Amino acid sequence: MPKNQLPQLVKGTRDVYAAQAMQRSYIIDHIKAVYQSYGFMPLETPALEQVSTLLGKYGADGEQLIYRILNSGDFLAGIDASASTDYKTLLPHIAEKGLRYDLTVPLMRYVATHHHELVFPFKRYQIQPVWRADRPQKGRYREFYQCDADVIGTPSLWIEAELLGMVHEVLARLGITDFKVSLNNRAILNSIVTLMGAAERVNEFCMSIDKLDKVGTERVMQELINKGFERTALEKFAFIFDMQGDNAANLQVLRTYLQESDSGLEAIASITEILHLLTKLGIPDNHITIEPSLARGLAYYTGTIFEVTLPNVSIGSIVGGGRYTNFGEAFGLMHMTGVGLSFGVDRLCVAMESLGVFPDSMGVATKVLFTNQSQEIPDLVSKVIPQLRQNNVAVEVYPEPISLKKQLSYANKKLIPFVVIIEEEELKTKKYILRDMNKGTQNLHTAQELINLLRCL
Amino acid sequence: MPKNQLPQLVKGTRDVYAAQAMQRSYIIDHIKAVYQSYGFMPLETPALEQVSTLLGKYGADGEQLIYRILNSGDFLAGIDASASTDYKTLLPHIAEKGLRYDLTVPLMRYVATHHHELVFPFKRYQIQPVWRADRPQKGRYREFYQCDADVIGTPSLWIEAELLGMVHEVLARLGITDFKVSLNNRAILNSIVTLMGAAERVNEFCMSIDKLDKVGTERVMQELINKGFERTALEKFAFIFDMQGDNAANLQVLRTYLQESDSGLEAIASITEILHLLTKLGIPDNHITIEPSLARGLAYYTGTIFEVTLPNVSIGSIVGGGRYTNFGEAFGLMHMTGVGLSFGVDRLCVAMESLGVFPDSMGVATKVLFTNQSQEIPDLVSKVIPQLRQNNVAVEVYPEPISLKKQLSYANKKLIPFVVIIEEEELKTKKYILRDMNKGTQNLHTAQELINLLRCL
Repeated sequence: MPKNQLPQLVKGTRDVYAAQAMQRSYIIDHIKAVYQSYGFMPLETPALEQVSTLLGKYGADGEQLIYRILNSGDFLAGIDASASTDYKTLLPHIAEKGLRYDLTVPLMRYVATHHHELVFPFKRYQIQPVWRADRPQKGRYREFYQCDADVIGTPSLWIEAELLGMVHEVLARLGITDFKVSLNNRAILNSIVTLMGAAERVNEFCMSIDKLDKVGTERVMQELINKGFERTALEKFAFIFDMQGDNAANLQVLRTYLQESDSGLEAIASITEILHLLTKLGIPDNHITIEPSLARGLAYYTGTIFEVTLPNVSIGSIVGGGRYTNFGEAFGLMHMTGVGLSFGVDRLCVAMESLGVFPDSMGVATKVLFTNQSQEIPDLVSKVIPQLRQNNVAVEVYPEPISLKKQLSYANKKLIPFVVIIEEEELKTKKYILRDMNKGTQNLHTAQELINLLRCL
Repeated sequence: MPKNQLPQLVKGTRDVYAAQAMQRSYIIDHIKAVYQSYGFMPLETPALEQVSTLLGKYGADGEQLIYRILNSGDFLAGIDASASTDYKTLLPHIAEKGLRYDLTVPLMRYVATHHHELVFPFKRYQIQPVWRADRPQKGRYREFYQCDADVIGTPSLWIEAELLGMVHEVLARLGITDFKVSLNNRAILNSIVTLMGAAERVNEFCMSIDKLDKVGTERVMQELINKGFERTALEKFAFIFDMQGDNAANLQVLRTYLQESDSGLEAIASITEILHLLTKLGIPDNHITIEPSLARGLAYYTGTIFEVTLPNVSIGSIVGGGRYTNFGEAFGLMHMTGVGLSFGVDRLCVAMESLGVFPDSMGVATKVLFTNQSQEIPDLVSKVIPQLRQNNVAVEVYPEPISLKKQLSYANKKLIPFVVIIEEEELKTKKYILRDMNKGTQNLHTAQELINLLRCL
């Protein structure tokens, strides 16, 4: 069949097979285990949500990226389509469902609907794909996994400390030792902008400093000046873009500059408290950096914010999170505070690949291939194979009695490390050849020896 | 907020939380482990497929149930919508993507696109949700999981034996001891219909006998007669609807009746061989029943077919599978034979719940709650909690110093089995109260004792 007739993937999506799929599972399994060890319970929500649930939550730009599902059956029934030449007029009538765009809005919907029966503080994790009709870019897909953990209903900073504890624990389990946790509080940014006399322009300010990593201090300053922020005021606070001291010293500097702002001092106290609580969890603070210029784009954060980057891999943040008050207000849920974090699995995958910290065997399913050299599959199979599989050693029997050379070639291509060769001669002596495919060595073993050897792989 | 303003789920979908989500994971994890122990590798495909990939694969009725995604942006651009008052005319132009409907077509697409680089026999498993715009019914959802394993590219019956071996292993690991595997071959049905002189009407015949479980033999016979099948011919073969002997005897009966049909005898021989190979895998045949009336609706099966039911739970089949030749022909992939099976996770969940075979602790995340009785979280926390969490014991610290009664009530509601109570007095003696919430007993322990005790939960 000519290549151009082959079925195509939807642009911006991909298949994930073997090693890649196992890497993703490996990361997700570790994140899940850590979330659960902190008492979080799993939630799974449907891929399909009412468009009315999704609208008004992601801003105008975000809303453009929601995938809409065409109503089933005659979607034009009862609609005067000839009158609707503009797609925006038609849209709400023909597509009432959309695809999950993040995991926060489904959480809000769930809590709003079930809050009478839920136990608060409510701790849930959710690991599912989301879909965004974004322009496809290298390493950026229209379907990707989010791994969220959130606690709803307590203002306690202990939760912030525990979330940061989970970050440390997940990264330790994944073998990532070099990472940087940037920690801030939106109230610090708010009070700085207020002290600059531009209280109502916090979001504009944050949008600019959010680009700090990409464009550098000078261009951010210029952009802020162009936006009409006062140069002298900006220069007074420019120190936040490049603090060099340790955390204690930097907090002290902030205390001095924000002494006129009660909410600023409160935010500094809460960061100090989080650092203190982390020691209670036995977590060293050498990965944590107070970074008052950290903004984390999303406007809905109101308190603590943090993100994690890897000094040796330029891939952006691999974890982000923070506290938001007014959680679920859009669904009528008043006075609920929430705090959460999200691991970026796809970025973590790329990062771990580049750091070389995945286990060597990733992507190799089968550990042992039993060759097949006669029409009659030998009884050895029933003595050895079930025992190995019950011990989760992956075993294959080559399904057809083709030439040994071809069967070894199959093992080679699939990177199968061991092959058991069963020839007529061996069937008589009740000993079997075990071939180490990496070393190229062969040895004779009894059935019981095979089990003992291979079970420990 | 008045209830009618609360956000609604899309009809036919559901949220899955806590115990339910953990049950689903428990089943999927076991299936995955068994699939992997047989050398299958994971594949994940995107939720979004080109509509052109999906069409022509599921029959006219199935096609109605495919969810279509509205093209992003101005989906009416370049279309004269006023001319398209019929939705069917408009449909192909405004919705070019659809949601994954099963896992077989994505597999075909994957193999067709990559067959030059894949190693055959190609063994993949895939566990992902699929979506169908079906009429919602009790226990039947528009989003549900499929758990498929398929082997492409070998006619060897060893694979059939291994697939049935996987069924036995999965059910054993899940604690399901009472189950029935019905085994047949489409060629037996073909040869029966051919011997009845209605060769070209096999599908019609199969569609009727597929209802056997629901409506009984008499109504199936009546329907076949109404369809124009000959009564005498039907009566000659009516024995297949109710065979009472053991497998060997029934195979002998079939051999006698089908002696005129080469393909029929071949199919009987292949079933005999599968039973023989199962003994090689150490699998007893007491769960397996030869059932020549088993049709398995889907017309694409061409060889072995099987399904698994539970005698004590009337929920339909929990596993189904079979062999299909002409795999991937729709995508230009010629002469490829495939054989596979699929576990119905949602049905398995309901069945296991009703059989009471889920572990007791399912749905309880947290094993130990540490109470919080002062502003200052005690140092004990850093001595005990990280060690427990590293051993995957789920631990929570109540985040606020509210009354002990309320904290115990939180533990009660969340079914947390143990609570560590840390009061002033205990902090001095360095001993801590461990309360067993189920027994209502309390004991004093040192930090080290706590770790040892709780680690073994």
